[in-house]
Amino acid sequence: MKALVFQGPGKAVWTERPRPRIQAPTDAIVRITKTTLCATDLRILKGELPGVVPGRVLGHEGVGQVEELGAGVTGLRPGDKVLISCITSCGTCGFCRKGLCSHCRDGGFVLGHAIDGTQAQYVRVPHAETSLHRLPVQADEEAMVMLSELLPTGFECGVLQGRVKAGDTVAILGAGPLGLAALLTAQFSSPAEIVVVDADEKRLDVAQRLGATHIVDGEGDTAQRVLDITSGAGVDAVIETGGLAGGFDVCQSIVAPGGRVANVSSHGTATALRLERFWASSLTLTNQPVQAVSTPTLLKMVQSGHLEPAKLVTHHFELADAKRAYETAAAAGGEGVLKVILSNE
Amino acid sequence: MKALVFQGPGKAVWTERPRPRIQAPTDAIVRITKTTLCATDLRILKGELPGVVPGRVLGHEGVGQVEELGAGVTGLRPGDKVLISCITSCGTCGFCRKGLCSHCRDGGFVLGHAIDGTQAQYVRVPHAETSLHRLPVQADEEAMVMLSELLPTGFECGVLQGRVKAGDTVAILGAGPLGLAALLTAQFSSPAEIVVVDADEKRLDVAQRLGATHIVDGEGDTAQRVLDITSGAGVDAVIETGGLAGGFDVCQSIVAPGGRVANVSSHGTATALRLERFWASSLTLTNQPVQAVSTPTLLKMVQSGHLEPAKLVTHHFELADAKRAYETAAAAGGEGVLKVILSNE
Amino acid sequence: MKALVFQGPGKAVWTERPRPRIQAPTDAIVRITKTTLCATDLRILKGELPGVVPGRVLGHEGVGQVEELGAGVTGLRPGDKVLISCITSCGTCGFCRKGLCSHCRDGGFVLGHAIDGTQAQYVRVPHAETSLHRLPVQADEEAMVMLSELLPTGFECGVLQGRVKAGDTVAILGAGPLGLAALLTAQFSSPAEIVVVDADEKRLDVAQRLGATHIVDGEGDTAQRVLDITSGAGVDAVIETGGLAGGFDVCQSIVAPGGRVANVSSHGTATALRLERFWASSLTLTNQPVQAVSTPTLLKMVQSGHLEPAKLVTHHFELADAKRAYETAAAAGGEGVLKVILSNE
Amino acid sequence: MKALVFQGPGKAVWTERPRPRIQAPTDAIVRITKTTLCATDLRILKGELPGVVPGRVLGHEGVGQVEELGAGVTGLRPGDKVLISCITSCGTCGFCRKGLCSHCRDGGFVLGHAIDGTQAQYVRVPHAETSLHRLPVQADEEAMVMLSELLPTGFECGVLQGRVKAGDTVAILGAGPLGLAALLTAQFSSPAEIVVVDADEKRLDVAQRLGATHIVDGEGDTAQRVLDITSGAGVDAVIETGGLAGGFDVCQSIVAPGGRVANVSSHGTATALRLERFWASSLTLTNQPVQAVSTPTLLKMVQSGHLEPAKLVTHHFELADAKRAYETAAAAGGEGVLKVILSNE
Repeated sequence: MKALVFQGPGKAVWTERPRPRIQAPTDAIVRITKTTLCATDLRILKGELPGVVPGRVLGHEGVGQVEELGAGVTGLRPGDKVLISCITSCGTCGFCRKGLCSHCRDGGFVLGHAIDGTQAQYVRVPHAETSLHRLPVQADEEAMVMLSELLPTGFECGVLQGRVKAGDTVAILGAGPLGLAALLTAQFSSPAEIVVVDADEKRLDVAQRLGATHIVDGEGDTAQRVLDITSGAGVDAVIETGGLAGGFDVCQSIVAPGGRVANVSSHGTATALRLERFWASSLTLTNQPVQAVSTPTLLKMVQSGHLEPAKLVTHHFELADAKRAYETAAAAGGEGVLKVILSNE
Repeated sequence: MKALVFQGPGKAVWTERPRPRIQAPTDAIVRITKTTLCATDLRILKGELPGVVPGRVLGHEGVGQVEELGAGVTGLRPGDKVLISCITSCGTCGFCRKGLCSHCRDGGFVLGHAIDGTQAQYVRVPHAETSLHRLPVQADEEAMVMLSELLPTGFECGVLQGRVKAGDTVAILGAGPLGLAALLTAQFSSPAEIVVVDADEKRLDVAQRLGATHIVDGEGDTAQRVLDITSGAGVDAVIETGGLAGGFDVCQSIVAPGGRVANVSSHGTATALRLERFWASSLTLTNQPVQAVSTPTLLKMVQSGHLEPAKLVTHHFELADAKRAYETAAAAGGEGVLKVILSNE
Repeated sequence: MKALVFQGPGKAVWTERPRPRIQAPTDAIVRITKTTLCATDLRILKGELPGVVPGRVLGHEGVGQVEELGAGVTGLRPGDKVLISCITSCGTCGFCRKGLCSHCRDGGFVLGHAIDGTQAQYVRVPHAETSLHRLPVQADEEAMVMLSELLPTGFECGVLQGRVKAGDTVAILGAGPLGLAALLTAQFSSPAEIVVVDADEKRLDVAQRLGATHIVDGEGDTAQRVLDITSGAGVDAVIETGGLAGGFDVCQSIVAPGGRVANVSSHGTATALRLERFWASSLTLTNQPVQAVSTPTLLKMVQSGHLEPAKLVTHHFELADAKRAYETAAAAGGEGVLKVILSNE
Repeated sequence: MKALVFQGPGKAVWTERPRPRIQAPTDAIVRITKTTLCATDLRILKGELPGVVPGRVLGHEGVGQVEELGAGVTGLRPGDKVLISCITSCGTCGFCRKGLCSHCRDGGFVLGHAIDGTQAQYVRVPHAETSLHRLPVQADEEAMVMLSELLPTGFECGVLQGRVKAGDTVAILGAGPLGLAALLTAQFSSPAEIVVVDADEKRLDVAQRLGATHIVDGEGDTAQRVLDITSGAGVDAVIETGGLAGGFDVCQSIVAPGGRVANVSSHGTATALRLERFWASSLTLTNQPVQAVSTPTLLKMVQSGHLEPAKLVTHHFELADAKRAYETAAAAGGEGVLKVILSNE
């Protein structure tokens, strides 16, 4: 088969690889139909994640068709259309049982990281029964691939950790794909106001179309502008999705007493924490990787028409053209790029 | 009457003051019988809280007897024995209704701070009905004064924010009064293990008598020693009560995936937050002042014999001797000093 | 002033009464501008609530203007436009502090019940600060009066007790005002499907316009028809608002494992509880009067345009015409009557 | 091997049976060392559970040693000492992922019910990885077998569903094994008062030794006596474990506003529900089978010395003597019988 293979910092080639085979009775082999890429893939390509060694097939998101199953998999059949979760979960370890699947003792974020990934014609998915989600035949594959990682991340790490509820005022820092995923799923809880902050006007336009009640561009004193929108009261929850210079500091300045600061993105370095501000406002801070436990809920929301993730797709490529897709995604800012779809065939 | 009056950094005098009078229909005048002091009082005496101006009567904790009541107070009577909460709460503003009483629009931490306090023969308590707790006649006043601030702080900011539950492993950093208050109240939730860390051996002895299952002194690599006790798994919750150099950094290193870091003390300055560690372990950080909403629960726990706060009292003074009490408390470390009681008469 | 006065079972007259005066420092006198009536008023008129004695002014809902305030009320001013909560709450007793305001030791459901009510030109409201909500000058009074009791009841007793969440399937039994209030507020939590059951076609039409995804009329085996909609899985929560013969039994038959049965209406008599069914499906049953603690949230939802309670208003009367309003409301079923508005002038 | 085999209502024989073999890759064969029996076994022997057909090996609790494992089981090894959960859980279906394991699509309460059980020399346990718990070599087997069903039931269905918390007043109806299991685990949450009600004086003595703060025997008006203990306020939670005539009715009479009625036992028939009483007191009712999700927590509590389940064991038999054990357990009341241990060898 063909696959996009990492060959060291800055280098990836679309090349021939042996087709993956069942290694454990809980494995599945999935033929990829659609995949996508995210900011983590861009960091991987740059060589920033030491766990990704040369020779690794990239990618941790995807939709496809079950090709072959290990003897222990009883809940799926060959031919099933499936969503591949970015989090591989054994379902039985202590962490999985607590819903902390990203910490699974035999899984977590492994696809395209510790083992070969989804930017290929075929992928082996361990613990298939708890790491794949069966889709209806008629499911929109482009919409579904947004549920591999993007939507669960915005929903779990942003909206659920931020405990957004009816009547709240919420700020979302960053209107890239993650910020927009948080924006779409925050509306499940009916906050009264959603303020989206970004320096990119095109992205703010999208945010407004997708439900932001207020937008704040990068000009001037961002924190003050958000506070002004709330008549000085501050927001009940802020969802930080990265990409805004000084974003974490803005978070600490705009939250009302009792509020939540939900960090969605992972930060590479130490950040100055104004604990005195946390104390003075009775704040809570959370930061976690996606656990992908909300995927069944998100699937129901798509099927019932409450969530339209295809709105986040802006560009399309052949899977064989993966490198160009990476270049497009890397350019992102200002170009109107949100999510790219890679199609096999 | 006589009162301990702040006169600028480092200066406080026991001197004559006009006896307080009812100013609003919701006020009470309380004759103090017992009061105490805490680390915040020591900081106030040093001049570190700009809100405390010269002329202010110090103190925000106390037990006493109702002397006089405003016309609007119906739930108390003159002669009632009462506990004075360190948090004055109107009970009606949006914050009070959410249990965020430290942010009360007409209260919060005001006694001995924005208005005259409890280290005096008499004190005026605004919003008496929601800021005083009636005590049984036979209540042990020394035990009760520990419920003005100390026990609610350890319980709310440490144990409840840390979401301690049956079977958990909990670490408490600091075995001063706050750490011991957290230790006593953590046991309400039956954690399987409680590790207490402090550099002071005398305090560690007390911790062990009061329920610590493991103690760790200040020698060597504290974080590693806590991790070793948990066989490398980390603790479910860490309660940081200050006093340990690098304490916040230890917190970030010893928490298991899904864990909570509950900061009890207020920090004056920015702290290096290793958000990447929070992300990697799906952590939650909280920091807040005491809201004093748990006081009714704590009163029941004392009355039913589940909580014995008098065990934290080590020294006794006449109220007129308040300055010597401050000196004793300031010396604290190594001297076996925990809480001092100041008695009026 | 004029008021609608109860004179024994079936009898109420619009007659002259002394205008109410301030009795306690926490009282307010409110000039009524709009009021409404509900099923409880109809039961009171029939003489079914023994607490309502002849001579009582009826009504517990209303919007008006503050006319006069007791000396202890600081958060309101004469002239303020206010919403009168059906629950009078002192804000300070143990029940109020736990959010169980209907059990307030000096309040609860007292207006038009234990003391004179709102179907009058003026009403005395005890504990004004915690029992009135200030409204913006431009607020739509007809919409707002729906927040005195109806919307908080549907939201708290139905949606919140039913723990409705994104992706859930919810059934609402009854499409009268209470069922529709539950329907409107259930959508705050974005359930994937909402099935509304009623025998009245006109009401089902309204339900469909207001967001029901499925409707079930009174024909045939109701429980089976709801189960069929869920492909046999059952619903996550059922909200029982009364009016459907055998409604409680239907509830017990249609809930999925782990589900909630939220009774909104009060039942006058013992009901056959199939505990074996509860056990077999791990169910939770709740039933409570409205506590009216969600009113601030609902006000925000109206102000932000997420909630349009005026859609429930179908008929208008002069306050002096109150008796005709009662007759209209009593006829209700089949006549397209939902909520009536009574206007003072 | 030998096993206790059901042969129709009232008949069970200790007889030869083929030793169970691995049927699925997720199975384990366990050699039983200790087992016990409960009220459900007594009902099964009487023929009251139609799912149990003649020929079935009885029993759903046990401790033993792993003898053989299916190819798909990676977390256990032959020779491991294990606790057998009364709930077989696949860990992957929608119910298991929500913690509703008793509703597992390929498990639940199946041992000694739908498939052969544990009152035998060997048992086949499906979904071994999520249905067995590895025990330390030195674990007290008699204590551990109490964690197969009894302790998780009292804890989950009683204490957790009853949301017992520090300072609460709790009533437990019934001081049989289930009531005592609730009593032991309620103390994890430090209620201020625990009232235990039973007609059997011997059992009340045990309750008092195990932590009851008040006991009420069967004489007179039980509900009134409990209310008197609370000075008329009522209890925050009542845990109904069966065995008391009119128990459910007592529950409805003694709960304070906002309280919880946690039914632990399964009821065979319809019960008169006084919904008007639920409404008037804002009550919540729960009833569910044990999900056995708390077993890891309970294991930690035993290992840390917080829970001593061996205190519930009163009688010992050889496994071959199982019938006599059934007779002893059936006699129970008044005879000081709580739990019987059946030992293999």
